[in-house]
Amino acid sequence: MVTWFSFSRKRLEVPRLRSRSESDSATKVELKELTPELLVYLGKAACLQLAAFEQLSVAVATAPTAGAKERITRAASLTLAAQHGLTAEISRAGATPGEVMERYSHVVEDFSNRVVGNTWTETLMSCYITNGFINDFLERLATGLPAGPAERVSAVLVANSAADLLAVELAAALDASPESSSRLAMWGRRLVGDTMLVTRSVLETPSPADSAETDDRIEPIFNELIAAHTRRMDALGLTA
Amino acid sequence: MVTWFSFSRKRLEVPRLRSRSESDSATKVELKELTPELLVYLGKAACLQLAAFEQLSVAVATAPTAGAKERITRAASLTLAAQHGLTAEISRAGATPGEVMERYSHVVEDFSNRVVGNTWTETLMSCYITNGFINDFLERLATGLPAGPAERVSAVLVANSAADLLAVELAAALDASPESSSRLAMWGRRLVGDTMLVTRSVLETPSPADSAETDDRIEPIFNELIAAHTRRMDALGLTA
Repeated sequence: MVTWFSFSRKRLEVPRLRSRSESDSATKVELKELTPELLVYLGKAACLQLAAFEQLSVAVATAPTAGAKERITRAASLTLAAQHGLTAEISRAGATPGEVMERYSHVVEDFSNRVVGNTWTETLMSCYITNGFINDFLERLATGLPAGPAERVSAVLVANSAADLLAVELAAALDASPESSSRLAMWGRRLVGDTMLVTRSVLETPSPADSAETDDRIEPIFNELIAAHTRRMDALGLTA
Repeated sequence: MVTWFSFSRKRLEVPRLRSRSESDSATKVELKELTPELLVYLGKAACLQLAAFEQLSVAVATAPTAGAKERITRAASLTLAAQHGLTAEISRAGATPGEVMERYSHVVEDFSNRVVGNTWTETLMSCYITNGFINDFLERLATGLPAGPAERVSAVLVANSAADLLAVELAAALDASPESSSRLAMWGRRLVGDTMLVTRSVLETPSPADSAETDDRIEPIFNELIAAHTRRMDALGLTA
């Protein structure tokens, strides 16, 4: 993981992350201290789920068989349910989902453009890797929301995870063309760099000083999220 | 409508349809006599719903605001629910959805390519007009299925209609740019021609003789479906 960090720092300008030895000595803080205000969280989270849906709809459109299309629509359906759970929460807070989401849509649009795959398998991999990381992150961050929304948001994210479904589909795609695995491993590294950047942007950084403090606080969490990412890659037989 | 028919016959090679005066003298037959075998119906219907979903996902991706995106995902969600209801029925009949759908996916792919819009409003119009016509058709045709599937398929199509939602969104888009209405009226005419062709392909025509007979039988039904289409266009203030 240390190697991964220094690699990504040079290539992708991932938020400043210290090496494992430094991080061990850092005070462990809960990610929930970094949770933004309710509507900021919900607006950004809803935008991220919408981006996940758009990625999945590209995977549906480019899938090689009717069976693959059909199975990926299940994942799309779950992502929409998560997105609608988040927008319901925005309405519950007395705001208009479209207006709240509009404020953050540009961030997600840039991200979506960066992680769109050149092939169906790459797109499928994007869906699996980016959604897995983002949902892990959003779930942890949700613990810092007020009690009611915290519970409901967490429940809707857990209930509508498309991870298992996508893992099965991706494993089958890799079985069918094992020669693509080294290319996909590289693609996975790029994806996680871009995903870290977009998740980092969910956290509020009102001033440069706070921003540095946020980086310190987020580091142990990112270490955990990357460990989960590594397990997802391992499960596919790919090097993280 | 007479005018519409002769126009479309020349331009679009719509299945042979006689003028109103001839059709009045034709024996009225129920569309259900034309209903194909259960798995053929379900496979084609599931492909058409998948195509509807793919159209809607293009509308989501190209929508001008986060609010519009969010609202159109509701329609996408409904279409997926209809599609999943149909594939559940395929599984219930002991077949594999992907395999059954694969047989008919090329028909739908050609259709999807023809009706994709050049602008967001055209795409939205495609979703509204083609799904409206196709779902009307599938509902009527479902009456000819065996009792159990007939009821369940009809219920799933009715419960998951995205028509009202799309009508509201399209009316708002037309309000915002009234100058596009004549272009959209033309687009609507082309859409209904292509849609008639694809719905016609759902009906079995084992031999050329049967095909001619099918055309005779389908004519009064198409007249009704076109009347419903005309009402959809009227509701938008557009000439059918």
